[in-house]
Amino acid sequence: MGGTHPVVSGVDGVPDLLTGLATTRAIRRLAPDPIPDDDLATILWHATRAPSGTNRQPVRYVVLRDGERAVGAKSLLAESFRVGWADKAASAGYDQGSALDPTSRKGRSRAAMQHLVDHFEDVPVVVLVCLVRYREANPYEGASVYPAVQNLLLAARALGYGGVLTGWHRAVEPELRDLLEIPDEVALHATVPLGRPLGSHGPVRRLPLGDVVYDGRWGAAADWAVDPLGTEFAGPPPASSS
Amino acid sequence: MGGTHPVVSGVDGVPDLLTGLATTRAIRRLAPDPIPDDDLATILWHATRAPSGTNRQPVRYVVLRDGERAVGAKSLLAESFRVGWADKAASAGYDQGSALDPTSRKGRSRAAMQHLVDHFEDVPVVVLVCLVRYREANPYEGASVYPAVQNLLLAARALGYGGVLTGWHRAVEPELRDLLEIPDEVALHATVPLGRPLGSHGPVRRLPLGDVVYDGRWGAAADWAVDPLGTEFAGPPPASSS
Repeated sequence: MGGTHPVVSGVDGVPDLLTGLATTRAIRRLAPDPIPDDDLATILWHATRAPSGTNRQPVRYVVLRDGERAVGAKSLLAESFRVGWADKAASAGYDQGSALDPTSRKGRSRAAMQHLVDHFEDVPVVVLVCLVRYREANPYEGASVYPAVQNLLLAARALGYGGVLTGWHRAVEPELRDLLEIPDEVALHATVPLGRPLGSHGPVRRLPLGDVVYDGRWGAAADWAVDPLGTEFAGPPPASSS
Repeated sequence: MGGTHPVVSGVDGVPDLLTGLATTRAIRRLAPDPIPDDDLATILWHATRAPSGTNRQPVRYVVLRDGERAVGAKSLLAESFRVGWADKAASAGYDQGSALDPTSRKGRSRAAMQHLVDHFEDVPVVVLVCLVRYREANPYEGASVYPAVQNLLLAARALGYGGVLTGWHRAVEPELRDLLEIPDEVALHATVPLGRPLGSHGPVRRLPLGDVVYDGRWGAAADWAVDPLGTEFAGPPPASSS
């Protein structure tokens, strides 16, 4: 439809689409440096290019930077993230075994998470991703929300930023809604901290493709579902699910 | 972690990451030509690079191509899509007004949707995106599913394919689960038809950025949330939400 493409492209250093998908990982060590308005607008604009049911576009983005209320909201969230991380550390075994070795994979994850919660107040931008509900809450409503969150993270990565999709606002959600005047009919689907990575993007670890792809019916092996050379694999799912 | 990047990149004609995000749109007119195994594996591999809560990776992909059960499942889904589209056409005004003008935007949407449901049995690949639930169903569980669906659609676009995120398996879900032996604890979150586009990808229409981005609290204007030059805008949300 229409002849002209949007002009946001050709930014220096932007990876190609496949490389971007393959090397965007959760970034939890964020520098405190602010994100310029233009970059933030570009990131959010690309988020809004994602699909939604019947193109209803029910997502709203509340951006927390450095105003008085934003600072108050970040402070609430910092508390909530600390609670969330303490619970997770206990339930998923981050307070024992290999997690206590800072050179292990689990130890590095633990350190990154600890860094995020210790420095949450200094995260330059926190985006609250909200859904204006148009029907009863249901397990599938995220189909109109999380594609946009993924686009947001990918666009951030394209511009040299990073972030992470979380739901760790839960412990302070009532206070947060009150402070930010979020209406009752609006659901809070994600809290996304964004900033310049102190570490770097790069390949992620996942299960072998053949473990998650089935051919023709549930459980049927797909012998063509082969990982490319160089793929790194995750271990088994975390302890809390076993 | 690890030093080498995955080798899936540098594919001819792959757009840069931002252009890919900006120009991937729902493709409903699909050619019947098969998708080669390698391309399908590449698309699914990039889907699996998306994040999930605690990296649990609870998503499974049931791929329907041309085996006996796959053909049966596609036939069931075709029926379900026709029912879904008939309902949507009535509720969202696709059977009246500008939708009846084939040159209008709504008329083109109507024709594309009609094409999809009329030719559903010939769609070369249908991917059922499933969640192996590890806690009670809830409105936020899609955070571990739909980022992968978005990656899948973006990777398809990178390789010259297209598709659309739908939930139109609902009308036949019990029969489909039975036929494909999908266990009770597994939720069916999306049905994604994939193939070569008969049309083309390109810019999408959305609300102005300033309508969906708030600064510091709900409803507060973000004067920096400006669309890039050349952005095309959507009209108001569809009739069914008013």
